[in-house]
Amino acid sequence: MKNFLIDESQVAAHYNVLNRIGCLGATPEAGFLRAAYSDEETAAMKHFEAAAKALGGLVRWDEIGNLFLEWPGTNSEFVEFGSHLDTVPSGGNFDGAAGIVSGFLAIEKILEINPAQRRGLRLRIWRGEESATFNAVYAGSRGAFGCFDAKTLTNEFRGKSLQDAMRSQGANPELLKNGVPTIGQDEIDQIRSHIELHIEQGNVLEVQKVDIGIVTSIRGPRRYRIVLHGEFDHSGATPMGISYRRDCNLALAYILVEIDKLATGEISQGRDLVQTVGVINSSKDFNDRNPIVYENAVPKVSGYGYFYLDVRSSSTDYLASYSEKVCADINRVATEFGVHAEISLISQSAAMETVDGEIQKLSESNAALLNISSVRLPSGAGHDTAIVGAQKRSNGTTIPVGMVFIPCKAGKSHCPEEFATFEEIAKGASVLAKTGFDLAIG
Amino acid sequence: MKNFLIDESQVAAHYNVLNRIGCLGATPEAGFLRAAYSDEETAAMKHFEAAAKALGGLVRWDEIGNLFLEWPGTNSEFVEFGSHLDTVPSGGNFDGAAGIVSGFLAIEKILEINPAQRRGLRLRIWRGEESATFNAVYAGSRGAFGCFDAKTLTNEFRGKSLQDAMRSQGANPELLKNGVPTIGQDEIDQIRSHIELHIEQGNVLEVQKVDIGIVTSIRGPRRYRIVLHGEFDHSGATPMGISYRRDCNLALAYILVEIDKLATGEISQGRDLVQTVGVINSSKDFNDRNPIVYENAVPKVSGYGYFYLDVRSSSTDYLASYSEKVCADINRVATEFGVHAEISLISQSAAMETVDGEIQKLSESNAALLNISSVRLPSGAGHDTAIVGAQKRSNGTTIPVGMVFIPCKAGKSHCPEEFATFEEIAKGASVLAKTGFDLAIG
Repeated sequence: MKNFLIDESQVAAHYNVLNRIGCLGATPEAGFLRAAYSDEETAAMKHFEAAAKALGGLVRWDEIGNLFLEWPGTNSEFVEFGSHLDTVPSGGNFDGAAGIVSGFLAIEKILEINPAQRRGLRLRIWRGEESATFNAVYAGSRGAFGCFDAKTLTNEFRGKSLQDAMRSQGANPELLKNGVPTIGQDEIDQIRSHIELHIEQGNVLEVQKVDIGIVTSIRGPRRYRIVLHGEFDHSGATPMGISYRRDCNLALAYILVEIDKLATGEISQGRDLVQTVGVINSSKDFNDRNPIVYENAVPKVSGYGYFYLDVRSSSTDYLASYSEKVCADINRVATEFGVHAEISLISQSAAMETVDGEIQKLSESNAALLNISSVRLPSGAGHDTAIVGAQKRSNGTTIPVGMVFIPCKAGKSHCPEEFATFEEIAKGASVLAKTGFDLAIG
Repeated sequence: MKNFLIDESQVAAHYNVLNRIGCLGATPEAGFLRAAYSDEETAAMKHFEAAAKALGGLVRWDEIGNLFLEWPGTNSEFVEFGSHLDTVPSGGNFDGAAGIVSGFLAIEKILEINPAQRRGLRLRIWRGEESATFNAVYAGSRGAFGCFDAKTLTNEFRGKSLQDAMRSQGANPELLKNGVPTIGQDEIDQIRSHIELHIEQGNVLEVQKVDIGIVTSIRGPRRYRIVLHGEFDHSGATPMGISYRRDCNLALAYILVEIDKLATGEISQGRDLVQTVGVINSSKDFNDRNPIVYENAVPKVSGYGYFYLDVRSSSTDYLASYSEKVCADINRVATEFGVHAEISLISQSAAMETVDGEIQKLSESNAALLNISSVRLPSGAGHDTAIVGAQKRSNGTTIPVGMVFIPCKAGKSHCPEEFATFEEIAKGASVLAKTGFDLAIG
């Protein structure tokens, strides 16, 4: 099995190039900005375009700026890897990039072992996975399948609209406006499998000291904004207790404790759930739109408060029923404090409930063969792969997809501290190589 | 006893004038701004200067802009009333003004009943009780007794420094710089009593349906800022629980619940205590100085959080020992969540532990005689009277002070909704009149 092992020096060779593209300082520790549809993103993509040509691949830029690198096989089917090369502002060089480097190295390894496999090999470098910078979602992969929300094309990042950014890189936003896919049904039908390696963006692998995560599902989030309306009162002159106070901050605290207990109770019964209150009364943007919040002050009982609730599960149905429970609890506790809770659902995405079982098993057994430890876990974050996995083939089935996670230091991502070692990436690439090989010859 | 009752029409007559000075709109409901050392504050003071002259009083502006109205008696001692006429921005017309109107009416009533009482009568209209607008404390009363913090003279409100505002009203800030009092020891020695009527700025009287509050003490506050340092993590990819998360917002919620239980437990044992968390993660000013707070986001476990704690008690010693307990609890709970709590004491003032017992008893019995219901309660807010009551006479005793509270609608103050009825003010003024009468003849 040794010949499938990819060496960390091969990873380092690509990072020597990528570390100079969009780096915000003299060293990678300064963080990166390769914005969606920026010159920097294009430069990073061109590095792999050149590398693919050197490896005898065909290169194809679709009309919305995605780059597809292909090594055809002896039949028309393709085994794919994919990820992205753009970053958030002050992001790291691993979210996305680790998937492209390892996908490329996996293809190189497969070709080295068997240059004439039955199925073709393809690396999809999706544009603008981090379109959130423009308050848009997955411009490249969604656009390629004709399911991008065109209303967000005029959203701006640093004074430039997404559509202008696209044009600046030779891409055509008109296709997105008209929902015209760049990957047709024939091409969809011939995708045997699509696998993405990604940094975990969590700390489960690190805490459990495991090399590889085999992703079982991609959790879908629901997000709520809860605004609390109580009564402003003098902090010194108003006795404590609900006869005198309608204290939003205190109600908020009791609510958070109550719903924390609710969630941990559900998890202890085996439910897949994560619940987070990331923001309490602190969003500057939201404050600006609601001047009343400025009435909160140190010597006042708070008559106004809010928090954002992010709940995720790998089961969309379960998340819907949990959401009802959690909202009921919020209302109940608020009422106990004489506070009115105004609950708004601000976004939701369906979970991707099952990553292809065969790919999971294959990745898991190949990791074991390569002496690489693995654990199954859901993905907490969304990925391009969820878009790929939602596409229907002509026979009614969806494209079989898989995801392989590698650890990232302290679970950090979307920040300059984001970090994975070349050794960790090389281990993940080795699992991709063996799994891709099996799928290509099988 | 009927002759001591002041009619609400007498209150209305003064409000007809005051409602036009510094009003921010066509009607009083628009709120008021009579800033400390502004033309508006001076205009309101001049109304009482003229009224006092019409009533045969002597008028005296001290060098720092306080106005003292006097009706000498047959000996050199004085029975005093006092309060202020400035307001916070968008404040109401009752915090301070109700005390001046009722003090003036009480003197008028006493003179009507007995024009030649033994002790003189004096109304002190303190300047700038709301100096907090300049981030300064009690410029007029502190300055008059030589205990103003001169460092704050250069603080600005709307582009004008406090010292320039003083000069604009003919006052001399140099006295404050040098700590020169305008009320000398002789004058202090001859103050028989000083009583202030004030709106409660809380809702105890309203909730308990009582006309008058007899203030037993003035609570001293301690204020803390607690900054929590945890770890930012992806909300979807990081499992719940302290093995994976160091969640500041969740720690904050558990801390608030824990210290709420601590405080209510202490109160149930008879301690005088109020505890308020008025601000959680939401102070725009504090955010601006600490950009790290912007890292909090809806899809992140919060790695940063803070809250402000305001605790008050009428016992300074008790508050010190309670503060140790509450800080220990905060540290303990934070540690349970893997979060570091950085606790800073940002301000503290001593409580005024005993308002003069004789004045309390007299006010209480006079209220009963006048068929006005009363209840004893501590003052949650600070007042000029606490400054007066801290001044030592030559014999080592302090000036005997008292405070009478009247209800204010829904406990609201420092906002346009601040409201008390003329009837409520008249009842309070009647208690002042009878009590002042007794002290003046006694």
